[in-house]
Amino acid sequence: MGALRRRLTRAGLPGLLITHLPDLRYLCGFTGSSAALAVTRRTARLFTDGRYTTQAAAETKAARVQIVPNPPAVAAVQWLAAQPAVELAGFDPSRTTVADLARWKAALPYRLRRSFLCSLPAPFVEPLRQLKDEDELSIMQDAALIGCRLFGHILSAIKPGVSEIEIAAELEHQARLLGAEGMSFETIVASGARSALPHGRATALALPRRGFLTLDFGVILKGYCSDMTRTVFLGKPKPKERYAYAAVLEAQEAAVAAVRSGVSCGEVDEAARNVLRREALAEAFSHSTGHGVGLEIHEPPRVGAGQATRLQPGMVITVEPGIYLPGEFGIRIEDMVAVNRSGGQVLTPAPKALIEL
Amino acid sequence: MGALRRRLTRAGLPGLLITHLPDLRYLCGFTGSSAALAVTRRTARLFTDGRYTTQAAAETKAARVQIVPNPPAVAAVQWLAAQPAVELAGFDPSRTTVADLARWKAALPYRLRRSFLCSLPAPFVEPLRQLKDEDELSIMQDAALIGCRLFGHILSAIKPGVSEIEIAAELEHQARLLGAEGMSFETIVASGARSALPHGRATALALPRRGFLTLDFGVILKGYCSDMTRTVFLGKPKPKERYAYAAVLEAQEAAVAAVRSGVSCGEVDEAARNVLRREALAEAFSHSTGHGVGLEIHEPPRVGAGQATRLQPGMVITVEPGIYLPGEFGIRIEDMVAVNRSGGQVLTPAPKALIEL
Repeated sequence: MGALRRRLTRAGLPGLLITHLPDLRYLCGFTGSSAALAVTRRTARLFTDGRYTTQAAAETKAARVQIVPNPPAVAAVQWLAAQPAVELAGFDPSRTTVADLARWKAALPYRLRRSFLCSLPAPFVEPLRQLKDEDELSIMQDAALIGCRLFGHILSAIKPGVSEIEIAAELEHQARLLGAEGMSFETIVASGARSALPHGRATALALPRRGFLTLDFGVILKGYCSDMTRTVFLGKPKPKERYAYAAVLEAQEAAVAAVRSGVSCGEVDEAARNVLRREALAEAFSHSTGHGVGLEIHEPPRVGAGQATRLQPGMVITVEPGIYLPGEFGIRIEDMVAVNRSGGQVLTPAPKALIEL
Repeated sequence: MGALRRRLTRAGLPGLLITHLPDLRYLCGFTGSSAALAVTRRTARLFTDGRYTTQAAAETKAARVQIVPNPPAVAAVQWLAAQPAVELAGFDPSRTTVADLARWKAALPYRLRRSFLCSLPAPFVEPLRQLKDEDELSIMQDAALIGCRLFGHILSAIKPGVSEIEIAAELEHQARLLGAEGMSFETIVASGARSALPHGRATALALPRRGFLTLDFGVILKGYCSDMTRTVFLGKPKPKERYAYAAVLEAQEAAVAAVRSGVSCGEVDEAARNVLRREALAEAFSHSTGHGVGLEIHEPPRVGAGQATRLQPGMVITVEPGIYLPGEFGIRIEDMVAVNRSGGQVLTPAPKALIEL
């Protein structure tokens, strides 16, 4: 909250309205599903409804809690407008619907309707959320290690004839037993020619006797997401398949090795792309190398071609190059990497050498 | 799509932009995660990106597909503006962010920026989605029956000492094996005094030797959600517990019996509330009686006190009164009910007499 106040002061903004739930959880700890946070340069107040009286009191830090009968964001706007030193309050236009804004304006005194609420030109809280502190990193490490254990566990279930959905079900079941609150996205289990689909959700299809199998999954632990991908092989790979796997692995390891404070996201992407270009596989790598991860599965920074954002200590990104050859096969390998001063720390230390099952 | 066009004509609206994904799926069948649908009185066009070329061609009906490199909604707005007979297009302000609207306007010719896009005063597609046709009802019946089978299955896993999370994990695992695409919301497993929390997500807590256990869960099948709740008892209930259960069951059955085309949602709510009032339990019933369900787990109509919306054939609602005695226990019983001319058809015919385990 201190860092947020400094940003407010620097921006010359006397008030700020926060309604995006991950931002709110990040700033004051509240995890309920209906709330708004009003921040001034001196104080902060969380508005929520009567269902959350007990929970808000227990969870909220760095803000006073006020239970309101009307929509929390309306109450927050009205409270901000009533603060003597606040003549202007910012909101995030990418998290505010046209209908919400109309409702907020209608709840203001007539003279304030045109001028009080100000659409912020850039996100205000996301840049803070990019930089994880030690507590956050420790939770994310635990979440990532659950992912590694799941990968180890699921290997024994992978057999020709078992359906993709059964693999996903077993993986998700085990995630629950290991303490996950849920999965951070729909589990991807894509076998055979389906491995060439970057987003191949598990289907009722049976695993083939031979071919690649891509597993992309993540868990949620204390609100934080993990994300990892491994591609294994059923049966005996042909030389072309071995060669393609080795190329993706080399690209992935080159990108991981490029991670360091001060390096741009584009440079990390280029490290992977460069290897695949050399192997004439650049065109089969049809997406970005990675993305930030934290309270949401996709957060800034984007780790893609030409991205100028420089890595900073505390950022956690995924590094996940892949190649997709439609009708043939696909391969993707993904780690979560925490940026520190001297390099990058891989949070998902599961084996990456090609596993044949 | 025909019904939508009639609504457009009646509203005197020449064009409509649809970006809410469940609305889009409902109207043209496309299930991807990035798309916009432009509708005029004569034609409809779906805009999506290159990742969905194959999928959009396979899934989309009643609209032409156009693959675009830029954001689909921007392309849809530009296409609408280029149609000769379209001088105005409506959008849903509750599904459009302030940032999106600014982006759409910026993509229009200057002379159209102020006047072309029109914020609709009421939802346009939701009223259609409320009325399920035979195909939809058949899918929802199947989804609801998976729920019933899950309830039957999970009874054998309920034992003192097993954790709530293990129960949820087993239930979700089985749901996957029965063909569910996922759960329609976070599974609620609330035991002992936790059953007094209306939204008690499964925790690591072990089931007690005696006490109520509330299970509230639903699956997704072909995009449609199911939703049901049963409350069972571990051990032998005391007279007060039996009495309270009987009161909730009577309230639930009274509300189910009140469901009929032409009856208002408020009357269904009142049927349940009236029974609990008579038993001096009305104050412990702290939420509405139910809600519509379909492609989203919560849809109109709201089945709450004073709601004037009249039930119509094809609506599917939940009927789920509950009582919550903080520090003691809670009980909720929920069915999905399809409205037809003569009454309501219960889609979740799992036993409701108190089960003692």
